[in-house]
Amino acid sequence: MSRLDDLIADAARRDPRALGRLSRIIDDDLEGKEEALRRLHSMGGDARVVGITGPPGAGKSTLVSNLIREGRAGGLSVAVLAVDPTSPFSGGAVLGDRVRMQEHATDPGVFIRSLATRGHMGGLSRSAQQLLTLLDAAGFDLILLETVGVGQEEVQVKDLAQTVIFVTVPGLGDGIQAMKAGVLEIAHIYLVNKADLPMAETAVKDLQTLVSFSPNEDGWKPPVLTSVATRGEGTGRIMEEMDRHFSHLKASGGIAEWRRSLALNSVTEAIRGVVDGSLQHLMTAGRKEFSEDIDRVGRREEDPLSVARRWLERLDLSRG
Amino acid sequence: MSRLDDLIADAARRDPRALGRLSRIIDDDLEGKEEALRRLHSMGGDARVVGITGPPGAGKSTLVSNLIREGRAGGLSVAVLAVDPTSPFSGGAVLGDRVRMQEHATDPGVFIRSLATRGHMGGLSRSAQQLLTLLDAAGFDLILLETVGVGQEEVQVKDLAQTVIFVTVPGLGDGIQAMKAGVLEIAHIYLVNKADLPMAETAVKDLQTLVSFSPNEDGWKPPVLTSVATRGEGTGRIMEEMDRHFSHLKASGGIAEWRRSLALNSVTEAIRGVVDGSLQHLMTAGRKEFSEDIDRVGRREEDPLSVARRWLERLDLSRG
Repeated sequence: MSRLDDLIADAARRDPRALGRLSRIIDDDLEGKEEALRRLHSMGGDARVVGITGPPGAGKSTLVSNLIREGRAGGLSVAVLAVDPTSPFSGGAVLGDRVRMQEHATDPGVFIRSLATRGHMGGLSRSAQQLLTLLDAAGFDLILLETVGVGQEEVQVKDLAQTVIFVTVPGLGDGIQAMKAGVLEIAHIYLVNKADLPMAETAVKDLQTLVSFSPNEDGWKPPVLTSVATRGEGTGRIMEEMDRHFSHLKASGGIAEWRRSLALNSVTEAIRGVVDGSLQHLMTAGRKEFSEDIDRVGRREEDPLSVARRWLERLDLSRG
Repeated sequence: MSRLDDLIADAARRDPRALGRLSRIIDDDLEGKEEALRRLHSMGGDARVVGITGPPGAGKSTLVSNLIREGRAGGLSVAVLAVDPTSPFSGGAVLGDRVRMQEHATDPGVFIRSLATRGHMGGLSRSAQQLLTLLDAAGFDLILLETVGVGQEEVQVKDLAQTVIFVTVPGLGDGIQAMKAGVLEIAHIYLVNKADLPMAETAVKDLQTLVSFSPNEDGWKPPVLTSVATRGEGTGRIMEEMDRHFSHLKASGGIAEWRRSLALNSVTEAIRGVVDGSLQHLMTAGRKEFSEDIDRVGRREEDPLSVARRWLERLDLSRG
């Protein structure tokens, strides 16, 4: 049996070391990645993926920690994929979350993985999708996908998660701001965390108003909940609504729809991955020439598209 | 003289109708886009681009409005590119910003353009970069790039703007959250808006502490400012620091570096643009077949990468 066989067999029984190693293989584009992903994909089960999103400082990490505790108490194995848009310059992730999640570090029923961005050509969404394939294959009962950020990234959460929880805090801008971030049509559960702060009621009412305007095409009316995550308050209710939404999805055919959207996402990301890899290879090989072309564009002697076309002619998409 | 000639000539003297039409040509991928971008690129002058970023609700739009007023009072022509990550589902942008900026609507020295996301395969960063080429060619004295969001998008702001202002509000999470968002190494000016709220001083001190840890490789020490944008307080000081940073960039060679980074960005985005366009064309032409492939991936009968490779073999990069 090859080493990859062993790793995958170990991952299938949620061995943390095997999961960690496969995560690194996927994340760092190491040898065996393609083969691993191919096999993990075929093993995929019926992952239940809950996305938790919202602005920085809303208390998402604390909420995730609470949900882990609640899930574990109910006998579920839980995986967390934390998508941290850390600096592309420092390359390092801040340890805040991990510190907060330390209480779960020794629990074999919990696996936590932090995902850093990998620069412009990489793609957070691709890595997240591939790690999800791993966690799905490992058969976790509940996968929590924590993303910091608003805007484009939430679209990715929507592509990857069945249930999306949007967490906000009192006093954080008005209703228009929430709409601006485009969360209205994405989230299935709204949560006002730090509900012991002043203006909590206003925040709840604002969200309720916004929800009342949302389309609800599939018949799900998003609830607006409150919590004080630092004291664990509200977690039970959130878990109940997560379960209720999951039942709703099963009844309405939403799970099949999600599975298809995930498949579409994984194929388009795979396409981009091959293109990006080939480009990176090409540019590395022709580094000096590429650099001169960039300088020419900077001096306005040539335009970006002409340079792009010249390099694309040399692209070999059978590699990468 | 062709219609495109006319449009470009009119845009060069900042005619709002020509700018609007060229923006639409660029944004909606209309005929003439390639040729227009080619010519606009060659006209590019010495745009001064200031990025304004921060979480939703921090008051960025109000600040932008104040900066327009201040810039106009100083005789500058001002363009605003507002990057709104509005919902990919509704497709429409919320009018909040435009309402807020109405006072500038009739001023011919001001041009405001809102940029909506264009879904997964589109790319906000590409559109923003191309519209910047237009505004640069038009010769605006000051271009303000407002982006909602944290994380990946700020990396794009960093690629496009010479000076980045990070706006936050009191009480929005702790220092670790700011670091998480990776803004520390990106912003050149920090602003605590809504400084009349409680905890404003704490926010300032937190940021000052973080700034003191930042590398400052080019010798610029980011100031931490305060404002109450709704009352216009603090705008003069922000403008001063913007000017000071611009002088610093000119003295330190930072402008040349920025120009090169912008050129690199425009070429890689052009490459992605051609690839995305070709893919979209291919998938539209083979819509039924592609849809069947996706279903097969969803049923786990085939893996994403194998499907991706099959479609890539058929990719024609000379179009798109």
